[in-house]
Amino acid sequence: MLAPESFVAGRWIGPDATARSIISPVTGVEIGRAGSAPPDPETLRDHALRKGGPALREMTFHDRARMLKALAQYLDSRKEELYALNPLTGATRKDGWVDIDGGIGTTFVFASKGRREMPDGHVYLDGATERLSREGSFLGQHIAVPKPGVAVHINAYNFPVWGMLEKLAPSLLAGMPAIVKPATQTAFLAEACFRMIFDSGLLPDGAVQLIVGGTGGLLDTLGPQDVVSFTGSADTALMLRQNPRLIASGASFIAEQDSLNATILGPDAGPDSPEFDLFINETAREITTKAGQKCTAIRRIIVPETMADPVTQALEAKLSKSIPGDPADPATRMGALVSPAQRADVLERCGRLADETTVVFRGSDGGYDEATGFLPPMLLHCNDPDAARAVHEIEAFGPVATLLPYRDIDHATALANRGGGSLVTSLFTHDPQVARAVTLGTAAWHGRVYINDRASAAEATGHGSPLAHMTHGGPGRAGGGEELGGIRGVLHYMQRTAVQGSPDMLTAITGQWVPGGREITGPAHPFRRHFDEIAIGETIRTEPRIVTLEDIEHFADFTGDTFYAHMDEDAAAANPFFPGRVAHGYLLLSFAAGLFVEPNPGPVLANTGLNALSFQKPVSPGDALWVRLTARRKTKRNDEYGEVAWHVTLYNQENEQVAEYELLTMVAFSS
Amino acid sequence: MLAPESFVAGRWIGPDATARSIISPVTGVEIGRAGSAPPDPETLRDHALRKGGPALREMTFHDRARMLKALAQYLDSRKEELYALNPLTGATRKDGWVDIDGGIGTTFVFASKGRREMPDGHVYLDGATERLSREGSFLGQHIAVPKPGVAVHINAYNFPVWGMLEKLAPSLLAGMPAIVKPATQTAFLAEACFRMIFDSGLLPDGAVQLIVGGTGGLLDTLGPQDVVSFTGSADTALMLRQNPRLIASGASFIAEQDSLNATILGPDAGPDSPEFDLFINETAREITTKAGQKCTAIRRIIVPETMADPVTQALEAKLSKSIPGDPADPATRMGALVSPAQRADVLERCGRLADETTVVFRGSDGGYDEATGFLPPMLLHCNDPDAARAVHEIEAFGPVATLLPYRDIDHATALANRGGGSLVTSLFTHDPQVARAVTLGTAAWHGRVYINDRASAAEATGHGSPLAHMTHGGPGRAGGGEELGGIRGVLHYMQRTAVQGSPDMLTAITGQWVPGGREITGPAHPFRRHFDEIAIGETIRTEPRIVTLEDIEHFADFTGDTFYAHMDEDAAAANPFFPGRVAHGYLLLSFAAGLFVEPNPGPVLANTGLNALSFQKPVSPGDALWVRLTARRKTKRNDEYGEVAWHVTLYNQENEQVAEYELLTMVAFSS
Repeated sequence: MLAPESFVAGRWIGPDATARSIISPVTGVEIGRAGSAPPDPETLRDHALRKGGPALREMTFHDRARMLKALAQYLDSRKEELYALNPLTGATRKDGWVDIDGGIGTTFVFASKGRREMPDGHVYLDGATERLSREGSFLGQHIAVPKPGVAVHINAYNFPVWGMLEKLAPSLLAGMPAIVKPATQTAFLAEACFRMIFDSGLLPDGAVQLIVGGTGGLLDTLGPQDVVSFTGSADTALMLRQNPRLIASGASFIAEQDSLNATILGPDAGPDSPEFDLFINETAREITTKAGQKCTAIRRIIVPETMADPVTQALEAKLSKSIPGDPADPATRMGALVSPAQRADVLERCGRLADETTVVFRGSDGGYDEATGFLPPMLLHCNDPDAARAVHEIEAFGPVATLLPYRDIDHATALANRGGGSLVTSLFTHDPQVARAVTLGTAAWHGRVYINDRASAAEATGHGSPLAHMTHGGPGRAGGGEELGGIRGVLHYMQRTAVQGSPDMLTAITGQWVPGGREITGPAHPFRRHFDEIAIGETIRTEPRIVTLEDIEHFADFTGDTFYAHMDEDAAAANPFFPGRVAHGYLLLSFAAGLFVEPNPGPVLANTGLNALSFQKPVSPGDALWVRLTARRKTKRNDEYGEVAWHVTLYNQENEQVAEYELLTMVAFSS
Repeated sequence: MLAPESFVAGRWIGPDATARSIISPVTGVEIGRAGSAPPDPETLRDHALRKGGPALREMTFHDRARMLKALAQYLDSRKEELYALNPLTGATRKDGWVDIDGGIGTTFVFASKGRREMPDGHVYLDGATERLSREGSFLGQHIAVPKPGVAVHINAYNFPVWGMLEKLAPSLLAGMPAIVKPATQTAFLAEACFRMIFDSGLLPDGAVQLIVGGTGGLLDTLGPQDVVSFTGSADTALMLRQNPRLIASGASFIAEQDSLNATILGPDAGPDSPEFDLFINETAREITTKAGQKCTAIRRIIVPETMADPVTQALEAKLSKSIPGDPADPATRMGALVSPAQRADVLERCGRLADETTVVFRGSDGGYDEATGFLPPMLLHCNDPDAARAVHEIEAFGPVATLLPYRDIDHATALANRGGGSLVTSLFTHDPQVARAVTLGTAAWHGRVYINDRASAAEATGHGSPLAHMTHGGPGRAGGGEELGGIRGVLHYMQRTAVQGSPDMLTAITGQWVPGGREITGPAHPFRRHFDEIAIGETIRTEPRIVTLEDIEHFADFTGDTFYAHMDEDAAAANPFFPGRVAHGYLLLSFAAGLFVEPNPGPVLANTGLNALSFQKPVSPGDALWVRLTARRKTKRNDEYGEVAWHVTLYNQENEQVAEYELLTMVAFSS
């Protein structure tokens, strides 16, 4: 018997007399019990706020990213234990891949993005410095810091592992402790993964807690620094949204709820096209994967009127191969819904679609009855999708989809938008102009637009797959929330703050040197200093070098860059940007390097690139060029070296800026 | 008599029998009537959705930015008409400057940012392309498009012009029509500005409407593509948030409400320091400007225990000069509250602070009584700010602030955070480490942290001034909303959508060439083509050029860049990044320019810079370098030329990428 436990303030709590029975969707018999009296909200909160939050916020973004990477590696090493439990949810191994490997993969992506896109410090920089004053003595910078509250994650039953990890990874990377509340029916699988997180010993005490069963009054105790991230039905979401204490609390509420996702077959994608086949394959897969219990699954199949018949026939042929069967059997192509109750719910919803649709295909039930969760795939047809309402509003959360014929692209986009806000719409076309028209027509109503064609077929990730890189969520009926999307998802757990002050103040706060800030003279040339020795703000100002006409002509001759602005006085003077012949921009860059380079082997290993180079004033023959170079930002890469970004400004003899850029170098540690 | 009118579906509607009386805060007598029976919500919505929305969305971001610039110029030319009405709100000319010039200036900033930071098209790109596949045939890009709904702007009485324009500018730039509902007491000034917007003829029909008086059932008719942006009291905000129809609608709700803003005097800023004087001046100004009726005004003055006395004395000296008087008189330093009722409200709230505070200063009342809006500045002192509650929770929205002594920096930040979420906290310190500690300690609880010291004093914009560049809003009690912040504020009126597809699909949707997309061979070298002739995707692939050891040595000698990786085979080979001697990165850039340059005068006027240069693989002597250059993005700058951004990749003889960057050029139009 399964008996998943809660984990509250460091203590495991098993099911009690209030526990709910878990019925196997495969056999229809009880396989476990889950839930207990709700834990005391203040105990939960205190543990998160006093232990987990401070410990996480003490770490840098990179510390937390490394922690996530180690966690993902640990889970990956034990994932077969999760796959062993997976069939008990009705899911095949392939279904489980989305959940288990998908969840671990998402954690890896956040670990990687945390290292690459966030600083190794405590303050995230949101956007560039804003110049708020003429002389630059007063500047603005948006920053983000972790919210000093707790994140409450309320998850759906369909992806117990992915659903938990895709919320945990961004919360933990942000620096926020979390309380996870999985859906009771599949809590045993979430708990198994949670227990591995605990076993790993990688997370600080209080960083994560688990509630199997009801949350009791937890949501009534939240405050303005807390975040509720909810995945589930629109009804439950609405109930939570209307909770007056939650409204008054100022807590953030992110929801991902119902969605009548659509797929559109482009008018160009006739039955002989590769896009037609891709469309049929993906649509059939979306109907049958996870027995249709995906928030992103296709519910509405929007096809040109003229192609309704061939699409129906092709889908029938494909779906007829998906016969429900034992999810533990590797030969099974489609598993069961999560429970007999869920099966009944899907059929009840199909009944509510009956006035507007006809059933054109119903597959084999594989010999299972209503005591189980097995249900065959079904294809409905809606003859008048403009008049229809239920088809656009009622989500049968199982292997069911409705075909809707369209007249032209405007009609197709209008039908897709009738969902009132969805997570995703997909489009199969090889015509970029069709892609543009459909995307512009549907984007405001969809969190994601997925386009596939022969060019991307080999690598496309699928209509139904939310990726850690891309936002997941949608407007209106889909809940109006947004998860994932790389660092965007992390920022939901942080507060954005506009900071204003002098360059020195911003430098101290951000840990990055801000132009105009204090320049530090180090004990040696900065390129002779190791990564760990270099202070932010360490600067050299070079001697000047006269740029001669001979230099310019020589450079032109050597490189082949004989652009007239360098070669012909009259033609150059006629150009609106130049006073006459001027030096090449790359000559200036090259001379600048010559002025600040340190030729001998030392800590600087390589120049790896540069950012935001702007040529601000022409340099004429006879001008004297000199350079200021300042250590702006340091990012450790591994135990041997790290990236140092230098702010570089080129000046002329009048001390006017002629060019500015950020120079990227790899610099070794001192030992 | 003032009689401001509503503007609904192209029709002006004057006050009717339901109108409210407007009482002068200066004389206490009725000076006008405002309001009428609420307009029909469907009429309002239809006009916005059928006329305003489509007309605005037809325009590009740059079209709308130019429209805003012209509008700001028009308003600027007629602003004295607004200043003439301004004293009727109780405000001095200086107070009005924040409102009137501040509102126009905000519109100018959005016009400018729209041109500089958004594309001249219909799709805004949010972040970089995400590489979702190994071979690059399937990519992701976040975009934003205008919401096809209506924005409802509910404004506060204190800034009738700025409050309207700071919401209108981002809405219109996004491409969303707006319905503006000013506060009734000062609606006459908002209406006067609105009438100028109408007179300008610059906005499409239906882009803006005005409701003077109640909104009736408007909020009950909203849907998921609509946005409510509210400024006002926490009580009203809570009422709106709890509206079940609004909750169920899926409309966005942005609120900026009460705030117990704080200012902190740094422990380093003793009475003789410049920061002490700055602190006294700004604090006194925040108390008296607009008679303290600013959502950002300082309510809590947090000072070191040891400095409580000198601060009190200095503030008393300063505040005693602010005697309320006729706001129309240029000699007046402090005007009136907006109405006698508001005066009574402030005094009632002061009464609720009396248990926790003592009144240490109350200025002259200038001879005015309770029939008017005049109130003298008041300074309260709270002896035990840790035990106090009212001081941190009750906002007396007038010329009142409370002094709170602190022990150390942690105590100061804890007190600032006791506001439960504020718009702004300010800090006066010359010590960057104090700035860092206070900012990290308070950022999560404040929408803005403002730091001033001797270095920024000459250019600092003030504790109380929201700037169009920086976000305005705050967590918790401040409403949890966010306005302004440049393009961030525009995105509240747009939907973010994750788009996935092949490079060609993303190119068509975004209007920017995506690496891996189709390369177009033009009829001539792309540098011989004018701005308007160049097609996105137009490409040249150059002939190869062998990079010789002589080239490297010559370049080193010429530029002075004799870094050992170019000069010494053994030392170079010992470096973890290089196989042996390699070419300088800038030599590669320079040779690349030589390979693709078109030397004669033509449409390309100048190379203005480059972005995101990365050196990806070393180039050894004997390698052959060649270049692919593709038109990626075009941005018109003026009638003569525009910026063309080229995507450039450098390859070796094995067709391996050795470097990649974006090249920026100015290119002339063809006539």
